[in-house]
Amino acid sequence: MTPFAERLTLAVQDKGPVCIGLDPHLHLLPAHFRERYAGLSGPAFRLAAADAVQAWGLEVLQAIDGIAAAVKPQVAFFEQLGAPGIAALERLVAQAKAMDLLVVLDAKRGDIGSTAQGYCRATLDDTGPLGADSVTLSPYLGPESLRPFLDCCDAQGKGLFILVRTSNAEADALQGNGVAEKVAGWISMWNQSRSSSLSLGPIGAVVGATVPSEAMALRAAMPQSWILVPGYGAQGGSAADTLPCFRADGLGALVNSSRGVLFAKAGEEARYQADHQALVHEHALAMAAELKALQIQRA
Amino acid sequence: MTPFAERLTLAVQDKGPVCIGLDPHLHLLPAHFRERYAGLSGPAFRLAAADAVQAWGLEVLQAIDGIAAAVKPQVAFFEQLGAPGIAALERLVAQAKAMDLLVVLDAKRGDIGSTAQGYCRATLDDTGPLGADSVTLSPYLGPESLRPFLDCCDAQGKGLFILVRTSNAEADALQGNGVAEKVAGWISMWNQSRSSSLSLGPIGAVVGATVPSEAMALRAAMPQSWILVPGYGAQGGSAADTLPCFRADGLGALVNSSRGVLFAKAGEEARYQADHQALVHEHALAMAAELKALQIQRA
Repeated sequence: MTPFAERLTLAVQDKGPVCIGLDPHLHLLPAHFRERYAGLSGPAFRLAAADAVQAWGLEVLQAIDGIAAAVKPQVAFFEQLGAPGIAALERLVAQAKAMDLLVVLDAKRGDIGSTAQGYCRATLDDTGPLGADSVTLSPYLGPESLRPFLDCCDAQGKGLFILVRTSNAEADALQGNGVAEKVAGWISMWNQSRSSSLSLGPIGAVVGATVPSEAMALRAAMPQSWILVPGYGAQGGSAADTLPCFRADGLGALVNSSRGVLFAKAGEEARYQADHQALVHEHALAMAAELKALQIQRA
Repeated sequence: MTPFAERLTLAVQDKGPVCIGLDPHLHLLPAHFRERYAGLSGPAFRLAAADAVQAWGLEVLQAIDGIAAAVKPQVAFFEQLGAPGIAALERLVAQAKAMDLLVVLDAKRGDIGSTAQGYCRATLDDTGPLGADSVTLSPYLGPESLRPFLDCCDAQGKGLFILVRTSNAEADALQGNGVAEKVAGWISMWNQSRSSSLSLGPIGAVVGATVPSEAMALRAAMPQSWILVPGYGAQGGSAADTLPCFRADGLGALVNSSRGVLFAKAGEEARYQADHQALVHEHALAMAAELKALQIQRA
């Protein structure tokens, strides 16, 4: 299997650094999907909603085909629907892989020993139910909690995005005081031991785009890492905010938008209800164009 | 609904501070369960293994009925089996609740905003698929990442166990340098605003039992918190190691053992294969007796 960093590089060179989040907010889906679970509760609700989410997700994948380099399913939105939700996630991940969309499973898992191995099988491992190309992880339990995932990267050409610095208002409460920089140091070391000099390695980082000076410092601290940049679009970040996360060669950042692509913006509601796929396609194209313009501007 | 801290207090006063982890290590299950998925792979393996795990788990719950105050299913072991694994987890959590065993869902989730809300519905919320009594959480994304769960505690009488200090060898790499103490400070503040003076509140902590001096300091820093103590039994901790996690009134610690109760120790293999329930029952009784002796000794 071609290593993850190379696969991502090829996809980004082909389509731009566009990652689209697959976040099925049940109250935001088009009305004809919402009708399927309206008024239901308990197991009947979860079954109908999971069915609707799967159908909606397949249409979203169709709409972004050829535009996005990667998709990022947010596991929480599927988990809240129980076993049928996980079955829908499995179906959507399989479909994304079949369409050559790289899958960034947004799970933010973190545990130790045999439990970490279990999470690795649950998310990345090709013998498991999902076999995603990459997964987001939380570093609170220390470097050893990430090792089973590193092993899977090495053995199966997978990738990781480890939480370093998030863009939420209170992130600094825990990630400040050198903590984010410490995690960045682990990531840099792990990539160095896996990739030659300046080539990108399998261990990426999540770095929120809201504090440019900090993003620049973290970019410099992890020269060989892909950076997953959330917060573009609906979360308030602009294309220009993502600039510090790119390397000088224009690579190294993968920019995610979820709600900004998936759902109707102000004034778009009628078009969204009439044909959500056309609108999602248009949003994705606009995002790709905005990120491309940014690259031309900086070059 | 009676608040979680009160329900846990009553259960611990009745049965002792005994929490038993539900960790279905597939290679350690009794042979007649392992036969059900031996030689299979892919979806057929996951379906058969999930079925075996559910049957095994129901027998374990039967075997510890009346001895354990709580059970702690480790979500990773179910997730690795995909949708059928989650269905098995749902069945076992429902059964534990029906038997008045308090459920500590070991999920170590951590995310922000609507995603955190999704994880809350997936784990704690009574309108969701599990409706566990409590859940373990990771604090890396800061205090706001925990708020949807605090709201659910307030509205539905649920509880949390937030990772503060874990017992793994490299935990200090991230949790050191004041980080664990900072999280302990949040927990203490949240309980103070919810419970009167010295009564136990809904926001618990995970504190590994391997560094006694640190456990004593964290116990003092969180006087109103339940502390979930992993690492007893197979992970190398002894009953005496858990002492610093108890309050002066003998309450406030919930001690977990997983592999040490569930599976065969050296020399027990034949009895385990003949009747695993009898052995699990015996292990659980021994654990309860050891923790009771400790309480008498310190009183």
